[in-house]
Amino acid sequence: MNIVVWNEYVQEREGGVPAELYPDGIHIVIADCLRAALGASALVRTATLDEPGHGFSDSVLDEADVVVWWGHVAHDQVPDELAQRVQQRVLEGMGLVVLHSAHLSKPFLRLMGTSCSLRWREAGDRELIWTVSPGHPITAGIPAVIPLEAHEMYGEFFDIPAPDELVFVSSFSGGEVFRSGCCFRRGKGKVFYFSPGHETYPIYHDPVIQRVIANAVGWARADTPSEVVIGIQESETGWFDQ
Amino acid sequence: MNIVVWNEYVQEREGGVPAELYPDGIHIVIADCLRAALGASALVRTATLDEPGHGFSDSVLDEADVVVWWGHVAHDQVPDELAQRVQQRVLEGMGLVVLHSAHLSKPFLRLMGTSCSLRWREAGDRELIWTVSPGHPITAGIPAVIPLEAHEMYGEFFDIPAPDELVFVSSFSGGEVFRSGCCFRRGKGKVFYFSPGHETYPIYHDPVIQRVIANAVGWARADTPSEVVIGIQESETGWFDQ
Amino acid sequence: MNIVVWNEYVQEREGGVPAELYPDGIHIVIADCLRAALGASALVRTATLDEPGHGFSDSVLDEADVVVWWGHVAHDQVPDELAQRVQQRVLEGMGLVVLHSAHLSKPFLRLMGTSCSLRWREAGDRELIWTVSPGHPITAGIPAVIPLEAHEMYGEFFDIPAPDELVFVSSFSGGEVFRSGCCFRRGKGKVFYFSPGHETYPIYHDPVIQRVIANAVGWARADTPSEVVIGIQESETGWFDQ
Amino acid sequence: MNIVVWNEYVQEREGGVPAELYPDGIHIVIADCLRAALGASALVRTATLDEPGHGFSDSVLDEADVVVWWGHVAHDQVPDELAQRVQQRVLEGMGLVVLHSAHLSKPFLRLMGTSCSLRWREAGDRELIWTVSPGHPITAGIPAVIPLEAHEMYGEFFDIPAPDELVFVSSFSGGEVFRSGCCFRRGKGKVFYFSPGHETYPIYHDPVIQRVIANAVGWARADTPSEVVIGIQESETGWFDQ
Repeated sequence: MNIVVWNEYVQEREGGVPAELYPDGIHIVIADCLRAALGASALVRTATLDEPGHGFSDSVLDEADVVVWWGHVAHDQVPDELAQRVQQRVLEGMGLVVLHSAHLSKPFLRLMGTSCSLRWREAGDRELIWTVSPGHPITAGIPAVIPLEAHEMYGEFFDIPAPDELVFVSSFSGGEVFRSGCCFRRGKGKVFYFSPGHETYPIYHDPVIQRVIANAVGWARADTPSEVVIGIQESETGWFDQ
Repeated sequence: MNIVVWNEYVQEREGGVPAELYPDGIHIVIADCLRAALGASALVRTATLDEPGHGFSDSVLDEADVVVWWGHVAHDQVPDELAQRVQQRVLEGMGLVVLHSAHLSKPFLRLMGTSCSLRWREAGDRELIWTVSPGHPITAGIPAVIPLEAHEMYGEFFDIPAPDELVFVSSFSGGEVFRSGCCFRRGKGKVFYFSPGHETYPIYHDPVIQRVIANAVGWARADTPSEVVIGIQESETGWFDQ
Repeated sequence: MNIVVWNEYVQEREGGVPAELYPDGIHIVIADCLRAALGASALVRTATLDEPGHGFSDSVLDEADVVVWWGHVAHDQVPDELAQRVQQRVLEGMGLVVLHSAHLSKPFLRLMGTSCSLRWREAGDRELIWTVSPGHPITAGIPAVIPLEAHEMYGEFFDIPAPDELVFVSSFSGGEVFRSGCCFRRGKGKVFYFSPGHETYPIYHDPVIQRVIANAVGWARADTPSEVVIGIQESETGWFDQ
Repeated sequence: MNIVVWNEYVQEREGGVPAELYPDGIHIVIADCLRAALGASALVRTATLDEPGHGFSDSVLDEADVVVWWGHVAHDQVPDELAQRVQQRVLEGMGLVVLHSAHLSKPFLRLMGTSCSLRWREAGDRELIWTVSPGHPITAGIPAVIPLEAHEMYGEFFDIPAPDELVFVSSFSGGEVFRSGCCFRRGKGKVFYFSPGHETYPIYHDPVIQRVIANAVGWARADTPSEVVIGIQESETGWFDQ
């Protein structure tokens, strides 16, 4: 299993709280937890915006089974052509785990077809993440509620298509709610949006959050694929004529 | 349009807060608001557990386009045969609006196939009801958030099938969340579960809550029906042989 | 209610069967049937690719409650900017009814986020359109099965997101199946895809097909809208601080 | 992984075609294919109606991770109490794979809440099973279309709740369509309905059908469960009071 953890990797290099919490970048913390959770069966690589090909040179994207995506202030610097390739790879069967502020990343916007806008407030709200689909593989071993002592508030209305499976719903101490764990199927691929992870809070150091992300990567990777071919196909004869 | 507001009508006759808030019964308040909202086009009747046929004598159920159901302490006194008739009428196209503690009513349990269990606390939490499906007819004219100053807490995990459409999600001051407005289609009929309405709070006097219930009745009533016949049917010939 | 029937209007002007079946264009036939079905309550206009603003000059799009869209050979001539405006209007609450080969139209592709590709064959298959959601308003008054004597085959795999509501499924004499009536909610708006209507068959003259389209327009138009505002919104205080 | 293949095992003992096709019972053929597909990791047992406890004596049901259920003429001989236990086990996390005429079995009816009725014809139609969810684990390694030379026709309207995931749709040479592979989540458990398998056709000897059933068993078994507890729970304090 090939996994790529992509991060724009901008704010962590600008000092301040993000640099203190994630001195080597958010992607390094997430990649390390995935390596620990998935073991030898998975090859976990990282990729960042400032690398050649914005981290997807050569065949990195073509070979990826799952891409984890974190972005915030540099969505615009991702070329449309790369966003389109990510979208295309999802339709072909690649998994995509979209984290926090990547709700406005180009690949996610293209796959959703909506504005993906939301309500927000950066005031250290306590967030409680409740499971509403306890038989779902992403909730394996996860408690009924995950508390985050302090986090940015993301609230409804979150302008996404109704998720194919709604897994988590959060409350905030300010009173808002948010569909914080959402599964989507697109083409042969799977997409999981998970809202925790603002860069000024140590969210990705939380072992329960790490387990959710590892579960999500496991869920999102393609099984042996169906033999369905996606694309326009002209059938010269019907099945009953064969 | 024939509407029946059914209420077990037990606690309001036992004195205390329910009797003060709803001296003539919860059903009367709901029926009055539906008459005001729907006007001359709707015939709104009430029915209670202690009436002949438990309120559904003669053809009342057969003629109903929508039934609104409130129950709490007397679910067991509803005969299985009546619950089965309500279920059957929904499959035939009748609408059913299930309120608050009727999540454990027999008709709802039969239609859902799950335990419909939940977490609860009676401690006067502030509840905030957020719209997560703003294009849905049940949200027509409804603000982005409906505040209830004090209410019983109903929290996840709510053991229902994933709703066909999730319309409202609530937060509580204690931190819980709840899928508080849920649409289900069963057979030719529609079911809406709406959680507000504990008998010790004046919830059904709130004009916004009243509008949600009226919208739900409008949504749940059958249009000119599809000509599909529900039931086992043997087809002697295929369409291509006709 | 303002309705706009948009048609690329190319093939009907090139002679041959399309010109014989639809001498004034497919849009005229559809607009006429909508006027007959919806009566004085609806203002039905038509719009075509070669008109100023590609049929959407001035405020035509801003005022539309529902747009019906037919296109086939000229999808590329629709400017991206117009497709984006249609998408945006749907998110704001406008209804969109997408017919037949418009599965590859730019507005639909943007709203779905998938390739919308499919299998096809132009061989005069008999198509049978079966209702699988008999309580849905789009099926009001529609028989359990709609036969089309001869039609282009559209078959699975149809690369769309799982519809929020699946209303019709077709079979073809060649043995294929197709999800031929699909509802989607996006933002505050509703989208209905309906596959019948190849330009070389008199499909839109069929009164049952006409009724489905009229039902779809009725379903897709916005009710009194929810007061939810879609867009990024910063909340300075939480609800519990108010 | 503990798997139980349950069969009423009536018709195969009455002679005729079922006895020729399945001399030891349908359950034996299915259990053998599951053993071959799942290997040493799975303990596959069979259970039949005429065994003690109707095949579920002792702790067989409590220990099962997945139950496969086939029934046709003897649904009524399954006690309500057993059907309720199966339903309860699904809510607790057990998987259930429901085959063919078991659409009218008591456990499935209880879990669905609808009539599960359908259209049928026993006339040797050719059935074509098309994949409409090619990224789903149940379609792993499955071709785009599975042909069955001759089978009983099962057609729409199939009175089930809209599946949480629709995986297969069939056509029949008579022109009918059917949602032939349907996923449902109920409580912590998963249910897959798969329509092939009439007792007078050698359907369960088909290796592609066998693979679908093995995939379904793999999908339906619970992962490490979520720690959510299902049931009515009173919370004395809110999370924000802790």
